[in-house]
Amino acid sequence: MKIAIDAMGGDFAPSAPVEGALLARERYPDVELVLVGREEDIRSVLREAGKSDLPAGVSIRNATEVVEIADESATAFKKKPDSSLTVGLNMVRDGEADGFVSAGSTGALLAGATLLVKRIRGLRRAALAPTFPTATGKAVLLDCGANAECTVEYLLQFAYLGSYYCSKVLGVEKPRVGLLNIGAEEEKGDALRRETYQRLAEANGRGDIRFVGNVEAKEAMMGVCDVIVADGFSGNVMLKTIEGAGKMLGGLLKAMLLKNAGTKLAALLLRGGLRDFKKVFDPNEVGGTALLGISKPVIKAHGSSNALAFCNAVRQAVEVARSGIADDIARDIDKMRIDRTEDGK
Amino acid sequence: MKIAIDAMGGDFAPSAPVEGALLARERYPDVELVLVGREEDIRSVLREAGKSDLPAGVSIRNATEVVEIADESATAFKKKPDSSLTVGLNMVRDGEADGFVSAGSTGALLAGATLLVKRIRGLRRAALAPTFPTATGKAVLLDCGANAECTVEYLLQFAYLGSYYCSKVLGVEKPRVGLLNIGAEEEKGDALRRETYQRLAEANGRGDIRFVGNVEAKEAMMGVCDVIVADGFSGNVMLKTIEGAGKMLGGLLKAMLLKNAGTKLAALLLRGGLRDFKKVFDPNEVGGTALLGISKPVIKAHGSSNALAFCNAVRQAVEVARSGIADDIARDIDKMRIDRTEDGK
Repeated sequence: MKIAIDAMGGDFAPSAPVEGALLARERYPDVELVLVGREEDIRSVLREAGKSDLPAGVSIRNATEVVEIADESATAFKKKPDSSLTVGLNMVRDGEADGFVSAGSTGALLAGATLLVKRIRGLRRAALAPTFPTATGKAVLLDCGANAECTVEYLLQFAYLGSYYCSKVLGVEKPRVGLLNIGAEEEKGDALRRETYQRLAEANGRGDIRFVGNVEAKEAMMGVCDVIVADGFSGNVMLKTIEGAGKMLGGLLKAMLLKNAGTKLAALLLRGGLRDFKKVFDPNEVGGTALLGISKPVIKAHGSSNALAFCNAVRQAVEVARSGIADDIARDIDKMRIDRTEDGK
Repeated sequence: MKIAIDAMGGDFAPSAPVEGALLARERYPDVELVLVGREEDIRSVLREAGKSDLPAGVSIRNATEVVEIADESATAFKKKPDSSLTVGLNMVRDGEADGFVSAGSTGALLAGATLLVKRIRGLRRAALAPTFPTATGKAVLLDCGANAECTVEYLLQFAYLGSYYCSKVLGVEKPRVGLLNIGAEEEKGDALRRETYQRLAEANGRGDIRFVGNVEAKEAMMGVCDVIVADGFSGNVMLKTIEGAGKMLGGLLKAMLLKNAGTKLAALLLRGGLRDFKKVFDPNEVGGTALLGISKPVIKAHGSSNALAFCNAVRQAVEVARSGIADDIARDIDKMRIDRTEDGK
């Protein structure tokens, strides 16, 4: 198993991806890592870390260009053919790596993955599928921003993608799939939601997925389902609201604990619990977001990833690769299609 | 000033609305209250509270029917003409009350308000406009579920409605209006968002509103704007996610504090701060959600409203009535219209 890491992507590149690779090598000794990016920059990080040589199982693939924020997402991979992003994706496409991790631009990674590595045949769109914390554990939310406008077929396919990911990669038996909506009843929401509801109910009837109906965001946070199907717009709103609410409440909590000597003592008494509390909303603990629907494992690590986040993203890439989920989806693709003559579209 | 209260709506009716009315009468002595509902039920609550007579300034308007969950939202007000909801709305329409507060079905209240009290002339849709807590204060979010599918004109009108509400009722000078989107740049989001962005920028250019651009949900939670404009679907997702995240984090916090003797001592040391912390997410502190765009004040109190929540909702109704916001909107309605010949629709 060999995972390529974009050494130039993210707020703390190249140090965080390089250190993340070294950490991953320690934690997962059967996984080889390839750092993709400017060799001199990578070597300079290694020198600063006091390592003159790369450890066995970690190598460098030189790539001279870097995709920048100013580059247009849709075309960056093409206009910078020797960028770490393009070189890494091509390695995956060509079988030189089993997966790719990048903390660079989401849009550029998605466009590059779609056009170089390609989607699983028959899938209309790839989806960003992060996990988020719930009151009882965690859930997968997709799509989360790759597709602002969705059709019924996209959402149907997201339901399958999320369900397979949840069972094959996260190990949840018979994952409960919910449709993000503004009410629980079948007829709630807009035309997109009402038709999707019917399609998901049919898939449930066939035993393909376990559809538990419409879910409101509040209930989703309480943990009533394992997979939440959403269009990329409202899914992104939900994800960003969770992040914002966590940040806001964390700030309030901190202010409360630092108020005076008494509250500081309280903070001391709670330190173990506070650490766990903080972990719940720490994106570094999750690692990254799988780009579901791409034919090979591509993981988007979040922009502010530290070494631990890169290490966790590598673990994710390995888990996706080992799960064989892409093969399962390809095999079952006919179940996820809407016959366009059937519904007159 | 006279406010009608639906005595039969909400999880704790009739006791919560009746007690809320008595509390409001104490707190706002220049406001008269009319309890609308089954007189015998209302009198029975009063007897249980040890009050044989109604205090001066609180009266009962008998209404024999009750809108139930099973009733269809769109037609309930019509099919039950002697319901507390219909009688209360008619009182507002006929000038017998200056505002109406109900914790009953949102859909039934919205349909009844739209068809009995009517929208301000020229407005395409009314919007649910709750306030939510941010890191720096609070913000108004609209629409939040009344309109799952929106046009550019609806969103443009919501921006004006929210801006007027925020300045005239909440007292924010030159409120900052943001468009809820999945990225900050002008071209982000779907076609609806891109066209709305242009319209809002034009309104800003004319000095009608203060448009600060696209905002992501995370930044909105941090308090970067005072008014957030959203379609009813994603607005509802944001609101419910805030509620869910607050509930989930509250639960985690509670578990952390009850863990052992040490953490219980910490809880004791923090009790003042914890009370404030809890208040931030307590919907009873807010009162209710204004139905903006209706020609007279109609406030939806949340379903689980207690007496304090009803009292706060009465205050809101009074504030909306005194603000004269409906007149301002009616006067400026031409600014909020999109000429359909102009954009070829």
